[in-house]
Amino acid sequence: MDLAQLVRAALDEDIGPGDLTTEACIDDAAAGEGILLAKQDLVVCGHRVAKRVFKEVARRTGGLLSYEVVHDDGSRVATRTAIAQLRGSLRTLLIGERVALNFLMRMSGIATHVGAYVDAASGRLRVVDTRKTTPLLRSLEKYAVRTGGAHNHRYALYDGVLIKDNHIAAVGSVARAVTRARATVHHLVRIEVEAGTLEQLDEAVKAGADAVLLDNMDDALLRQCVAHARAMRPEVILEASGNMTPERIRGLRDIGLDVVSAGGLVHQARWVDLSLDIVQS
Amino acid sequence: MDLAQLVRAALDEDIGPGDLTTEACIDDAAAGEGILLAKQDLVVCGHRVAKRVFKEVARRTGGLLSYEVVHDDGSRVATRTAIAQLRGSLRTLLIGERVALNFLMRMSGIATHVGAYVDAASGRLRVVDTRKTTPLLRSLEKYAVRTGGAHNHRYALYDGVLIKDNHIAAVGSVARAVTRARATVHHLVRIEVEAGTLEQLDEAVKAGADAVLLDNMDDALLRQCVAHARAMRPEVILEASGNMTPERIRGLRDIGLDVVSAGGLVHQARWVDLSLDIVQS
Amino acid sequence: MDLAQLVRAALDEDIGPGDLTTEACIDDAAAGEGILLAKQDLVVCGHRVAKRVFKEVARRTGGLLSYEVVHDDGSRVATRTAIAQLRGSLRTLLIGERVALNFLMRMSGIATHVGAYVDAASGRLRVVDTRKTTPLLRSLEKYAVRTGGAHNHRYALYDGVLIKDNHIAAVGSVARAVTRARATVHHLVRIEVEAGTLEQLDEAVKAGADAVLLDNMDDALLRQCVAHARAMRPEVILEASGNMTPERIRGLRDIGLDVVSAGGLVHQARWVDLSLDIVQS
Amino acid sequence: MDLAQLVRAALDEDIGPGDLTTEACIDDAAAGEGILLAKQDLVVCGHRVAKRVFKEVARRTGGLLSYEVVHDDGSRVATRTAIAQLRGSLRTLLIGERVALNFLMRMSGIATHVGAYVDAASGRLRVVDTRKTTPLLRSLEKYAVRTGGAHNHRYALYDGVLIKDNHIAAVGSVARAVTRARATVHHLVRIEVEAGTLEQLDEAVKAGADAVLLDNMDDALLRQCVAHARAMRPEVILEASGNMTPERIRGLRDIGLDVVSAGGLVHQARWVDLSLDIVQS
Amino acid sequence: MDLAQLVRAALDEDIGPGDLTTEACIDDAAAGEGILLAKQDLVVCGHRVAKRVFKEVARRTGGLLSYEVVHDDGSRVATRTAIAQLRGSLRTLLIGERVALNFLMRMSGIATHVGAYVDAASGRLRVVDTRKTTPLLRSLEKYAVRTGGAHNHRYALYDGVLIKDNHIAAVGSVARAVTRARATVHHLVRIEVEAGTLEQLDEAVKAGADAVLLDNMDDALLRQCVAHARAMRPEVILEASGNMTPERIRGLRDIGLDVVSAGGLVHQARWVDLSLDIVQS
Amino acid sequence: MDLAQLVRAALDEDIGPGDLTTEACIDDAAAGEGILLAKQDLVVCGHRVAKRVFKEVARRTGGLLSYEVVHDDGSRVATRTAIAQLRGSLRTLLIGERVALNFLMRMSGIATHVGAYVDAASGRLRVVDTRKTTPLLRSLEKYAVRTGGAHNHRYALYDGVLIKDNHIAAVGSVARAVTRARATVHHLVRIEVEAGTLEQLDEAVKAGADAVLLDNMDDALLRQCVAHARAMRPEVILEASGNMTPERIRGLRDIGLDVVSAGGLVHQARWVDLSLDIVQS
Repeated sequence: MDLAQLVRAALDEDIGPGDLTTEACIDDAAAGEGILLAKQDLVVCGHRVAKRVFKEVARRTGGLLSYEVVHDDGSRVATRTAIAQLRGSLRTLLIGERVALNFLMRMSGIATHVGAYVDAASGRLRVVDTRKTTPLLRSLEKYAVRTGGAHNHRYALYDGVLIKDNHIAAVGSVARAVTRARATVHHLVRIEVEAGTLEQLDEAVKAGADAVLLDNMDDALLRQCVAHARAMRPEVILEASGNMTPERIRGLRDIGLDVVSAGGLVHQARWVDLSLDIVQS
Repeated sequence: MDLAQLVRAALDEDIGPGDLTTEACIDDAAAGEGILLAKQDLVVCGHRVAKRVFKEVARRTGGLLSYEVVHDDGSRVATRTAIAQLRGSLRTLLIGERVALNFLMRMSGIATHVGAYVDAASGRLRVVDTRKTTPLLRSLEKYAVRTGGAHNHRYALYDGVLIKDNHIAAVGSVARAVTRARATVHHLVRIEVEAGTLEQLDEAVKAGADAVLLDNMDDALLRQCVAHARAMRPEVILEASGNMTPERIRGLRDIGLDVVSAGGLVHQARWVDLSLDIVQS
Repeated sequence: MDLAQLVRAALDEDIGPGDLTTEACIDDAAAGEGILLAKQDLVVCGHRVAKRVFKEVARRTGGLLSYEVVHDDGSRVATRTAIAQLRGSLRTLLIGERVALNFLMRMSGIATHVGAYVDAASGRLRVVDTRKTTPLLRSLEKYAVRTGGAHNHRYALYDGVLIKDNHIAAVGSVARAVTRARATVHHLVRIEVEAGTLEQLDEAVKAGADAVLLDNMDDALLRQCVAHARAMRPEVILEASGNMTPERIRGLRDIGLDVVSAGGLVHQARWVDLSLDIVQS
Repeated sequence: MDLAQLVRAALDEDIGPGDLTTEACIDDAAAGEGILLAKQDLVVCGHRVAKRVFKEVARRTGGLLSYEVVHDDGSRVATRTAIAQLRGSLRTLLIGERVALNFLMRMSGIATHVGAYVDAASGRLRVVDTRKTTPLLRSLEKYAVRTGGAHNHRYALYDGVLIKDNHIAAVGSVARAVTRARATVHHLVRIEVEAGTLEQLDEAVKAGADAVLLDNMDDALLRQCVAHARAMRPEVILEASGNMTPERIRGLRDIGLDVVSAGGLVHQARWVDLSLDIVQS
Repeated sequence: MDLAQLVRAALDEDIGPGDLTTEACIDDAAAGEGILLAKQDLVVCGHRVAKRVFKEVARRTGGLLSYEVVHDDGSRVATRTAIAQLRGSLRTLLIGERVALNFLMRMSGIATHVGAYVDAASGRLRVVDTRKTTPLLRSLEKYAVRTGGAHNHRYALYDGVLIKDNHIAAVGSVARAVTRARATVHHLVRIEVEAGTLEQLDEAVKAGADAVLLDNMDDALLRQCVAHARAMRPEVILEASGNMTPERIRGLRDIGLDVVSAGGLVHQARWVDLSLDIVQS
Repeated sequence: MDLAQLVRAALDEDIGPGDLTTEACIDDAAAGEGILLAKQDLVVCGHRVAKRVFKEVARRTGGLLSYEVVHDDGSRVATRTAIAQLRGSLRTLLIGERVALNFLMRMSGIATHVGAYVDAASGRLRVVDTRKTTPLLRSLEKYAVRTGGAHNHRYALYDGVLIKDNHIAAVGSVARAVTRARATVHHLVRIEVEAGTLEQLDEAVKAGADAVLLDNMDDALLRQCVAHARAMRPEVILEASGNMTPERIRGLRDIGLDVVSAGGLVHQARWVDLSLDIVQS
């Protein structure tokens, strides 16, 4: 489902056979002007999606609408700032308003939320998201994560190998799991192994894992594991996850990890407040 | 987009051409057993979706999987409670895990979050959601709102008339807006008018609005408006919205409103924590 | 399925892998001019659809075509009147001809047919359609009904409550059916109850139905029911249905009903005759 | 769009996010029994579609329903005859009712209507339909035509060549049009040419047309053309069209034509009356 | 699936959530110029598809790109010849490159391969393809066959009747099979019967087949069958198939056949070599 | 587009509104038995797809069919070997035949063709395919490559970074290209750089490329590059491509390469011959 399909489906959901109110009250030819307004301090994210929403509504209603970005994605703006200016068919403006805002408020909400994690890391380790994203919106949510200054982990099940305890249990050992994965995946995909203990980490590095995910460890164990792994194979990629808040990340940023991952970048983010104000009609 | 299409699209997003790890490590014939486990106190919501996720994965992989509900949607369960039990193809279990959990954690998150609002209302006014929902997930999120004990507002632009200030400005007066809407919509649809002042409320009731949305008023003004409207036409439906937190709802529940609406039922809800534990394989 | 999808599917149906005749006989660059001609007296309906048909064919064939409306939707025109003028790619004209006409002849057929019912009502009651529409064409057929001067009933099962005898039988009483419906639907949806006898009408009004559908009653009973209901609750909406022909509507227009519904507005309408004449090529 | 897609789209149209009334009033587990009843004398057509409608509703609601055919497609039944018997989930019955009937009433309407044309032809010439069919329902309407005893003309633009005056005008002569068509179409497709005069008929036969469509001629000219063509090339296929009513077909059935085509088989057919009666619940 | 859908699906397959390399390395605004270059002698085929690929990529990336054809479809060009020139967004060029080439190399491969068969026939019999085509690409592959100078057989199961031995066995005799087919198909479709022996040919001609497919016969038997059939009914269409190589076609071109069919036109064709060279960026 | 959608689209293409011949000649209830027969020595590939084709046809026609695999995917069988046995609805068998065979002949053709390359490599280097695959069939063709014993390269643009000369030219240097890629892609994706000269190889290794693609070098230069790279960084992955035939691969298998890639695995493969023989009906 590409962006065009996503936007069409979102509009189908909200408009269906028609906007009863707007079609009754607004003449087809009425023109207007609106601004997208931040109602709180936030990081802007989602202009491309909002623009396409209005464009698709314009196509459906036969109207015309221009969408001028005032503050681009990634900008940190104060409350009451206009982030975009729209001019054209009033029907198009009013029919597209809610869906456009629903995308913008969600995406800007994530971009804004992510900042605290990134600040905590101070550029000394890479903060990444997970596959815990809203179904059908992964591409947009991962984009919002990047807009907020963090990075992405693998996109999906098909572009990275992450061997977890269930996989290991099923094949019998870390070594066999790594060997089987290496035999089937293409040579540009790295293999990461999840480890919950120092023994598992040791086994993973010995098995030739390219990366190890240190999962749900306390800070002391994390330090111990990093030291152990670096001693065995300095270039192994080390990632930590499990209850990673900004506070905790601050404490871990100098212990030698490469990556810290947090589902909360996405699923603990709330919408920020934005509105469409019609300034003239 | 019905549930079947939604689930298929969500799986396309996460699986694409295949789960590299599971296909490498887990034999096609391997069987296992898993439980869906609450990792915090929560209200369960989303079994029907999760079940369909695993069923669709089973169809794609050619596996078999049974999904037994232990605590049904709407149940309030304590942390560490198993809410469902799964048995069958281990590949199906592991490939479907993330998408099923992404739905469950979002939906249960809303159902859990909604409780405080409903409790605050004590059954004396109807707490409803808005159209501020995640694009493409409106049906599921509105279901989660009901599961949590609240009610829904109109589903979309096509099943209710809500005349806002922009509509009024465009046609010139509340009376003309109501007349135009009445002339075009079918006779089972009620007409609601948004009012931000006592004068607007007065005008709306005079214009014959079936319902009035008292938007962004402070408590004093709300009380005044309710009294005024009830005096003019007792049966008019009165709804209040704007920064409706559980605390505020508690204070408003006895002033004579019918409905209070809050976008935050949905967009301020965070995911709750659930996991799939493989107990035997 | 929005209009764009509908038109594409209609063209897929008629063109499939290609128009054997036109591709063989008409050069890609040939231009022409055509007129859409009424072959009988009729009410025009469907320009927007026909225009989109030719636009989509133009897109597929890489041609260009302009479509100028001469008599807009809702115009009553005499036989041999040109209702639109087309200029451009001859291939596009000939390939799109049949599908465009199939929409226009159906829609204009309904708009024309509806007139007699509307005339009979003389504006004293609202003539509405039903859900008896051609599958997948409901939106267009309901638009044709409005173009012909009548109104629409609810669009579908999701934007109005109509409690019929089967629903009542299943829950045990009208009162319980109304209560259950009220508890679940949002507050902008009215509840209508079907009644076949005076007793059922009485029960429906007492149960708090917002509207009552007086179904399959003879004229005498209809009068009696209207009088009874108005005495109980003046503002209840009263609708009559069952074999509503223009003749019968004329006799009922002053008895105090609000609405009369007739499936025949749509399903007894025949296509009117229109043709595309190439005037120059 | 195959039958499964058509049925799904028809249900999306009528059900959308849900049947407000049935979901409120009918318990998920309630069972019932219904009969599909003819409300006038008619020829049955559409069981396969109706069955699939209920099956798809059952799939969506998680219900079960059996559909037993009592009088199969093509049966001529008297009013008050049960044509099918349904047993199972009451919700499924009530939610699927309208869409199933909309298909059955349209299709049986055509099958019933077609009979008079076929009777008039007495098997001495083949009565066929045209491409004047309801967009997206061609396959079903052509099936209904066959069910009523008539035959089909080409299905669409891709499975037969029919050279009309516009094609001839564009290439300059009948002979050149036939030659160009013969050069491009595969060898199992016959080429038919439309003729409005004796001269055009003569030219078409000389050009090697496999069939000639005698369009909009009066009876005298038709007779003259048939005689002329048979004298030139006995095996040429001769089809007549233009205002072909049953009465006129009766007069033409012995003049030596092979085929008579009438768009009215489909577009002048009205729906017949059928209902779903719940006999027990 | 029309061309637009095919191209979109092909791009979804290759691009999915994004081109990691190009998005990282090429700035959004970078422009460039490229040429599509033949890397061997070949017959060009597929410009329309390649153009649409780049146009769709441009739409997705928001870039602009012009595509100028230098040597059109059907041109025979020598190695190192530029067949098209592209100018515009460098991202668009690089992201669309592979899919465009995959279409061009396949289609030009067929057009090139077909030449030898056509040359062997020297215009004395019609060389046609079969239904042995790559699933989903039939329309493009049949176009490539025509571009190479050969013709098409029926497109699919719906636009021609070809009665094979299994069909005959099931109904009992050729005569009955032909009669049944004649009764159901429309009058512009010819009926062809497959024959493997002289007796079967004799039976088919007697049964009134419009065409006979002489399948898997040696040259001597083919000659005998042609003579026999021409004596019985001169105008019957005679087609031969089974291991038809250019060499064999040369020997058969004067024996009186009408058509020779070869699946190998398509399925024995290999891709030819083409590349996209960026000449300036 | 998953397998189910692919199969449905392939059947839509070949069946469209119906199989004229089979529907005319074969009774709905007729049963039969068929075998899928190799007509040449080949490696079997595609059972899963063929099975789904017949299953989908059975669903559409309402028939039943069992599909028993005799020789599974990957089996090397001699001509005249039955690879599968089918029993059930004769209509289903005959309608699904062509599409099922079109998949099987293509996929088995690739699996068979790949063998020579794999044999030449003798397990000493990994033979992989490229993105030169038939649009929409990549997943099946890559599966066929694995079935024949070779491996896959990256699936698409989204699951591996391959920096080519155009990318390098656009950013200015290999080092900058690698740096930009590393900054944006997730940590489980390796970065490969294309090199055509020893200098470029040197630059790529210095820039930190995880893998280098030695493109279009002669054997002498390849040897020199491998030696140079191994001396700089032993663990760098080295891949060679460009005119890789089995013969050439034999000569290169011991020079220290890791991977050799060849588009010809897929695009130089021809269909192998298979047929469906009805053995009893």
